[in-house]
Amino acid sequence: VVVSFADRVVRRTIALQSVVSVGFDPRPELLPESLRRQATASLRAQASAYVAFGELVLDASEGLAVAIKIQIALFEALGIPGVRAYARMVRRARERGFLVIGDVKRADIGSSAEAYVEGHWGEAARRAGADADALTINPYFGIDGCKPFIDRCAADGRGVYVLVRTSNPSARELQDLRVDGDPLYLHVARRVAAWGEPLVGSEGYSSVGAVAGATFPTELQAVRREVPHVPLLVPGVGTQGGSAASVVGALDARGAGLLVSSSRAILGAHSHGAPGTSATERMRDAIRAMRDELRGGGS
Amino acid sequence: VVVSFADRVVRRTIALQSVVSVGFDPRPELLPESLRRQATASLRAQASAYVAFGELVLDASEGLAVAIKIQIALFEALGIPGVRAYARMVRRARERGFLVIGDVKRADIGSSAEAYVEGHWGEAARRAGADADALTINPYFGIDGCKPFIDRCAADGRGVYVLVRTSNPSARELQDLRVDGDPLYLHVARRVAAWGEPLVGSEGYSSVGAVAGATFPTELQAVRREVPHVPLLVPGVGTQGGSAASVVGALDARGAGLLVSSSRAILGAHSHGAPGTSATERMRDAIRAMRDELRGGGS
Repeated sequence: VVVSFADRVVRRTIALQSVVSVGFDPRPELLPESLRRQATASLRAQASAYVAFGELVLDASEGLAVAIKIQIALFEALGIPGVRAYARMVRRARERGFLVIGDVKRADIGSSAEAYVEGHWGEAARRAGADADALTINPYFGIDGCKPFIDRCAADGRGVYVLVRTSNPSARELQDLRVDGDPLYLHVARRVAAWGEPLVGSEGYSSVGAVAGATFPTELQAVRREVPHVPLLVPGVGTQGGSAASVVGALDARGAGLLVSSSRAILGAHSHGAPGTSATERMRDAIRAMRDELRGGGS
Repeated sequence: VVVSFADRVVRRTIALQSVVSVGFDPRPELLPESLRRQATASLRAQASAYVAFGELVLDASEGLAVAIKIQIALFEALGIPGVRAYARMVRRARERGFLVIGDVKRADIGSSAEAYVEGHWGEAARRAGADADALTINPYFGIDGCKPFIDRCAADGRGVYVLVRTSNPSARELQDLRVDGDPLYLHVARRVAAWGEPLVGSEGYSSVGAVAGATFPTELQAVRREVPHVPLLVPGVGTQGGSAASVVGALDARGAGLLVSSSRAILGAHSHGAPGTSATERMRDAIRAMRDELRGGGS
């Protein structure tokens, strides 16, 4: 029996008492000193340094993070060695038992979206172990652009997170435009709920989730209220400015229903911390602090 | 002196008396028989077959097509060999003098969008010759997600086409939602025009263009009227159902201002045609017919 992605998220959330998703968005300036020096030799060396850093991040996340969200753009920036490194990171994180979210933000007309599905969940990806548990996708095409992804979720226990209200400053430019008195993003949230209705699992959430940024707490709460069965992926806590407090109110009674993704605040934590502690311990402390700050529910 | 992307498109359009952009969306079933057999051996063989087919398509397009639009999803479906083949196709098409549109539909928050820019126009891409003249991007993040691309256009004579009204059946699901009495896509079109205003070239068009599908003629005309300085990329003619006639009315007096992209109708043309003609000749006939059908302007 295939356990749905949504159920896996909820169960792991409860088991770890954590809603933390570590965002692996590697950049040269975030690397520990020795890896940073190594990374300057070539793009290939930079990609290797990212993977080596990724192993430290996975060590730091062990038992604390539900998921690892891997930002593909930072790997694609390095060309072929980067694409290989992305695949390797997905595989390593899955091998170590994390749920893996490929942050790819893909979408296209149906026939091209199918090709993206093939690329991320098809033969080549599976052979390389690079088939993430879930992917982020963009709703602008409507259901056609999302359906090829959604159709593949049930059989393999996979999920998607559709962009609803993003965490960037200009998110409001389109997403807050008023349609029949409500902002566009709420209309999108309702579509996402409808698309994912057949995929609501036994824990009460669908495997079709929504991205709603922590940088806009009011909008996040509005999405949470509007579509209670849609699990959320909440980026923007930490460096982008979102506060943990704004998120805790959106948790259900089990302390579940969303994952909070933080990247720079965790990946950069190795550069400061208690003297004599390793890079991994410092990142681990940052993840633990984030987990504790986000413990809610049961209220 | 760097000639802007927009000026290059208009000048090539006038020189060739053509608005044709050949969409290179290769699929096994579109390959000529011998290549199709070769493609079945492995994903690597399939990628090689795509490149070999691409050379035939470039032969067929010579002197008739302004641009080659390359759909990256179909290459990413093949994993690493596919990503290499995409890069090679971009390089070959540019070497042969075509304007190349990388149909990548990317967008993310600003810092990640910058990484996509680096991947497509940065060091690794330039070294591989895989830096397309223009890229398609998605507007859902607002200006933050597009600015990293737009900021890079002026210095290198590059362009972007922002999705405004897509060609797929469910395009209307979000894009036609009414905002202040107008459909969302017209609001997006106005943003695109504003973002691209500083990049209007000497031929009257901006290097920040818009995607508006031929499958919805009324919407295409509305976009054309609303933002006269935004050059259009018009997919959906041919197999998707858009007619050439619906596009001709959107051309300016020089027969310029947009590019019409057709893929399957051209790529599949080798499978039928006059006996004794080569695959290349048959595709060439299809491109020539499309060019002639789209000749307008000067009315």
